[in-house]
Amino acid sequence: MAEFDWIDKYLSPIATSPDAMGLRDDVARLSGGETGATKIVTMDTLVEAIHFLPDDPLYKVGQKLARVNISDVICKGALPRQALLSVAMPASFTEENFESLCAGLGRDLEVWDIDLLGGDLVTTNGPLVLTLAVTAECLGAGPIKRSGAKPGDIVYVSGVVGAGKAGLDDARTRVESSAARHYRVPSIPGKGIADMVSRFANASIDISDGLIAEARHIGKASKVSLEIDLNTVPWFETVYSLERALELATGGDDYQTMMTIPASLEEAFSESLKRHGLSMSRIGKVVEGQDVRVFWNGENVLLSREAGYQH
Amino acid sequence: MAEFDWIDKYLSPIATSPDAMGLRDDVARLSGGETGATKIVTMDTLVEAIHFLPDDPLYKVGQKLARVNISDVICKGALPRQALLSVAMPASFTEENFESLCAGLGRDLEVWDIDLLGGDLVTTNGPLVLTLAVTAECLGAGPIKRSGAKPGDIVYVSGVVGAGKAGLDDARTRVESSAARHYRVPSIPGKGIADMVSRFANASIDISDGLIAEARHIGKASKVSLEIDLNTVPWFETVYSLERALELATGGDDYQTMMTIPASLEEAFSESLKRHGLSMSRIGKVVEGQDVRVFWNGENVLLSREAGYQH
Repeated sequence: MAEFDWIDKYLSPIATSPDAMGLRDDVARLSGGETGATKIVTMDTLVEAIHFLPDDPLYKVGQKLARVNISDVICKGALPRQALLSVAMPASFTEENFESLCAGLGRDLEVWDIDLLGGDLVTTNGPLVLTLAVTAECLGAGPIKRSGAKPGDIVYVSGVVGAGKAGLDDARTRVESSAARHYRVPSIPGKGIADMVSRFANASIDISDGLIAEARHIGKASKVSLEIDLNTVPWFETVYSLERALELATGGDDYQTMMTIPASLEEAFSESLKRHGLSMSRIGKVVEGQDVRVFWNGENVLLSREAGYQH
Repeated sequence: MAEFDWIDKYLSPIATSPDAMGLRDDVARLSGGETGATKIVTMDTLVEAIHFLPDDPLYKVGQKLARVNISDVICKGALPRQALLSVAMPASFTEENFESLCAGLGRDLEVWDIDLLGGDLVTTNGPLVLTLAVTAECLGAGPIKRSGAKPGDIVYVSGVVGAGKAGLDDARTRVESSAARHYRVPSIPGKGIADMVSRFANASIDISDGLIAEARHIGKASKVSLEIDLNTVPWFETVYSLERALELATGGDDYQTMMTIPASLEEAFSESLKRHGLSMSRIGKVVEGQDVRVFWNGENVLLSREAGYQH
């Protein structure tokens, strides 16, 4: 395999930071604590046929790889800084494939001002496996955790919910739709949402495993219960039935930020959103108890313990 | 897949640092710059049937995963600090397999005092793919690069060379030998070698792709030529022929440190090695020119451009 040539041709142009040390040393410099900000790190792996479809364009897969990681840090109230890439390539993976992957990844890293530092390029007898690790700097004192939700908090979500699930169905049946495009390249919250999280949230999470599963994660970690009103969720499409709402609420790949904020801050929060041209939707509240409770037309919906999506 | 159960049962016990945030938040805290040391990071991926054999015990695969990364930072004059793990598991991967993998990885991380921070656990339709990213703190002002070698430098190598190649052959044919054990779980240099690198080396690298290929990497990056005397290399076994020497010098998986030091420091270097109970072997020198030149019984050996091992 021409690993070294491919690194020179396609990775070097998107890894221009001095910290990458020219991709020549198996190691790279982590940016220091010069700003005094708390640094965090996340790592996500995408596997062909599990997290993306074998015929998805690799440019888009590269973008998705960046975004699933960026989503993880935005929702914690942090901005991404540096990244490390690992690619396990099947024998059928062509130079053109690699070029597209790097171009898509590089495009999103550039938009988000993330320095690619290096990583590893290996061969596999199986499907394409991509791992990205991303470091970030917290805007506040530290990352906002899942575990900080308190009874009385209000639950907010960014963007629209359900596009990942609707898009997977379309992409699988090769229907070209805006949902399918969203499945391939998720829309993720912008930097402004990271700022909102750091200033207002008691708890937060990104919706990668479905709205209900993530609400459950916050509830479990915080030892509270989240009550979600499905009629107020900003669905990706017009939802006429509980069945469809539950489908979209338990599908994966939304990558929006869900957070809980103290009710006492709600007015300041709304004003701040408006001032920054942002919007988030109020979808429920935090109460004492455990697990998650979901409502549709005012009625409590019985959920299976398994509601959610595990990759 | 019972991802969450497995995390609780097998990863939480080996990820006890507060920085891991209980493995609950998709992100973890990077240790800060409190010591003022330059921080570096590396990432290596091991693929089943490429970097380890399908019937290798997973405890040993976990140890190898740690060591191939630790080797990368030791050879740069740095000590490892924190780690992130990604596991892409085939459907056949059992809970017992995961337990063994975590136990082996955890054992080596503990020996090296590395905090596991978190990572990602996913499924795959292909072979097991493991990625570990490791951060480290430089003992000197920064990482020692491949590019610092100067004509007149002396080339040293730690430990023994060729065990990886000899061991792969044995492990493939199911011969149990110390070489096979070394292939599965490489012996890597200790912390003392990191200290030697940071204090004395102009250039350094770890031998993952074979002695000759790595000497070529230093030569190319430093715009010099390395002359290696194969008769002085500390081979893993007694070597009687040039053919065998070349086999061992072009096999992979040695994970020893090769470095070049200024001739003027050689005496102080030798004394320091002795004082710390360490040993390294003098195997050649740096001259003007390019590429690598290899000698056997005083004669220059003609090499193919491809001498080396690419994973």
